[in-house]
Amino acid sequence: MRMRKKPGAKEYLESLSQVVFQPSQHQGKWRQLLQRTTLHVEIGSGKGDYCTKMAKLYPDVAWIAIERDASVSAVALKKCQGILPENMLWIVAEASEISTWFGVGEIDVLHLNFSDPWPKKRYAKRRLTSPLFLPTYLTLLKEQGEIRLKTDNNGFFEYSVLQCGGYPLKMEEFSVDFRREQHDEDAISEYETYFMELGQPIYRAVWRKV
Amino acid sequence: MRMRKKPGAKEYLESLSQVVFQPSQHQGKWRQLLQRTTLHVEIGSGKGDYCTKMAKLYPDVAWIAIERDASVSAVALKKCQGILPENMLWIVAEASEISTWFGVGEIDVLHLNFSDPWPKKRYAKRRLTSPLFLPTYLTLLKEQGEIRLKTDNNGFFEYSVLQCGGYPLKMEEFSVDFRREQHDEDAISEYETYFMELGQPIYRAVWRKV
Repeated sequence: MRMRKKPGAKEYLESLSQVVFQPSQHQGKWRQLLQRTTLHVEIGSGKGDYCTKMAKLYPDVAWIAIERDASVSAVALKKCQGILPENMLWIVAEASEISTWFGVGEIDVLHLNFSDPWPKKRYAKRRLTSPLFLPTYLTLLKEQGEIRLKTDNNGFFEYSVLQCGGYPLKMEEFSVDFRREQHDEDAISEYETYFMELGQPIYRAVWRKV
Repeated sequence: MRMRKKPGAKEYLESLSQVVFQPSQHQGKWRQLLQRTTLHVEIGSGKGDYCTKMAKLYPDVAWIAIERDASVSAVALKKCQGILPENMLWIVAEASEISTWFGVGEIDVLHLNFSDPWPKKRYAKRRLTSPLFLPTYLTLLKEQGEIRLKTDNNGFFEYSVLQCGGYPLKMEEFSVDFRREQHDEDAISEYETYFMELGQPIYRAVWRKV
């Protein structure tokens, strides 16, 4: 998501206790920090709708949202008056460094929702399912850990499914129109609602580390 | 495809030299019979549009169409006045017995186009990508052989992708809207045209035996 830089965003975020700018200092200790035994991480949280809703829906799980853009993050935090659910933290940093933020096998589930598709081939490496990222996810996921991906973008979905096929990941769920059935177990963000109202299918897949 | 039984269909088909009712007698010898080095097989050919077009498009390949319904097969054969391209044969028989028709590793490429989705769960075994069929396909495919699947049916596509994930098959191509780009290498049957005109996406995947 692109947004004009908001002056004061960083200062605002720095004033909040649930926002983390130096995630490396908690490597291997996120569960302890959030006092939960299960850790879910979303990369590219945007305005935070999905992760916040899921944190409320699953209060026994530790949730971490990652968003590199400080202005977007500030919008997300302002929406909840600077206070996230108590089982949730918000990281403002560039996901390319994620390997230094989490320990080996620390993450139970990794969520990718409506990630930037980077449609041009020359930017394919920036896609969050490119070979720049997938091997790292595999290291950070525990045994039997999951990657859950949702998107409205057919090109990004196709790319992701083919990429994941090249790693020790077993596809366990797969839908080319996820919202044709009700899924109360999965939160719907404003962003997803927008695409649903346009009548666009929502693509989704879940892979398990094997 | 359901069709009212046409009287005389079987007799008509039996009069044609390119129609095979006893495929087992050619097991392991199809390439020789058709004097080609590469063998493509389509299961569930319906009115034969796809296979006939592909046989013309790829005259150096041996093509075999399989259709269990004699009435549907008769319609297909009448469309070409009983004469198929010379590199093609038509089998009228039930695909559940396919393991007795081809030798181990005899098939280069297996095509499944717009197969009956058998949407009800209790009929899932009848789907052409069920565990009743996939292990047999793997045996009949040569090393590095391919399964190519196209469908308009989201449920059948989802089922097939998940099923194939459980076998030593590597997904090599994958599209949730195959016809958004031009694919001159792949024939479009009347059936496919119908769905394209409705604006429905065509799902497609290709797996390689590994």
